[in-house]
Amino acid sequence: MEEKAFQDHYADDVSHCYGCGRLNEEGLHIKSYWDGEESVARFTPRACHIAAPGFVYGGVIASLIDCHGTGTAAAAAYRSEGRAMDTQPGIRFVTASLKVDYLLPTPLGPELLARGKVKSVGKRKVVVVVEVLAEEKVCARGEVVAVRMPGTMKRTGTN
Amino acid sequence: MEEKAFQDHYADDVSHCYGCGRLNEEGLHIKSYWDGEESVARFTPRACHIAAPGFVYGGVIASLIDCHGTGTAAAAAYRSEGRAMDTQPGIRFVTASLKVDYLLPTPLGPELLARGKVKSVGKRKVVVVVEVLAEEKVCARGEVVAVRMPGTMKRTGTN
Repeated sequence: MEEKAFQDHYADDVSHCYGCGRLNEEGLHIKSYWDGEESVARFTPRACHIAAPGFVYGGVIASLIDCHGTGTAAAAAYRSEGRAMDTQPGIRFVTASLKVDYLLPTPLGPELLARGKVKSVGKRKVVVVVEVLAEEKVCARGEVVAVRMPGTMKRTGTN
Repeated sequence: MEEKAFQDHYADDVSHCYGCGRLNEEGLHIKSYWDGEESVARFTPRACHIAAPGFVYGGVIASLIDCHGTGTAAAAAYRSEGRAMDTQPGIRFVTASLKVDYLLPTPLGPELLARGKVKSVGKRKVVVVVEVLAEEKVCARGEVVAVRMPGTMKRTGTN
């Protein structure tokens, strides 16, 4: 596992994301890493991230899948170009489509493990499948279709 | 438009949801109402709900679609039974599946309008299509497959 999370390589001007931006003080700070051919993110929801008592809110699970998916997409794009994530020009993805199947009520309290598999890597589009586990049970399964961040969302040309 | 939101009819023990629970002090407080055959929720993201600067985080849009979808599902189930939402036994739905297509970057700042259409109402399953608009443009389109809350998630038998 690498020391620095995928998301911590993002340039400052695109590091404000509520889900994963290191510069968002109120955000979730989702952080993803390679684990061989797969990617992993470990995230413990806060007490307020509740659905019904005892269970995690689905929107937080969707957020975990979303940011782990786009982070994995960026890392996969660098990998496919044979580049380290701290090299320029920066590569950043946004979500074109997100699908989540909630398979089991997810217990609130334990750390969640998001496990990503890269399904396809194109020049513009990367598809990542993400499973979310709690206490070793798969509670949700998602798919993220990530596309290169459009120029209209960038403030600089570097990332 | 009714005075009381769908979500404000939920029993106390299922009103903690981070997305829409009136008893969750840190939550988003998404509130849905009928508007003829459609349902609407108006929600203004906070400054921290950012993706890249100027745009709304996709996980918050997913949350809006999720809670507006399950709220609309509950309201549609009551309506199909010819019952008011404050009658017992309570009907509550959870999300089995959530799909979101992000069509345009959603500007951060303006109020968002979620507009729901009930696609199908079964005894156990309700499908709701939700569009999210900002400044009258459709920025995201989602579909929520909502199912009756399983007994394992309930603390009481009433809702």
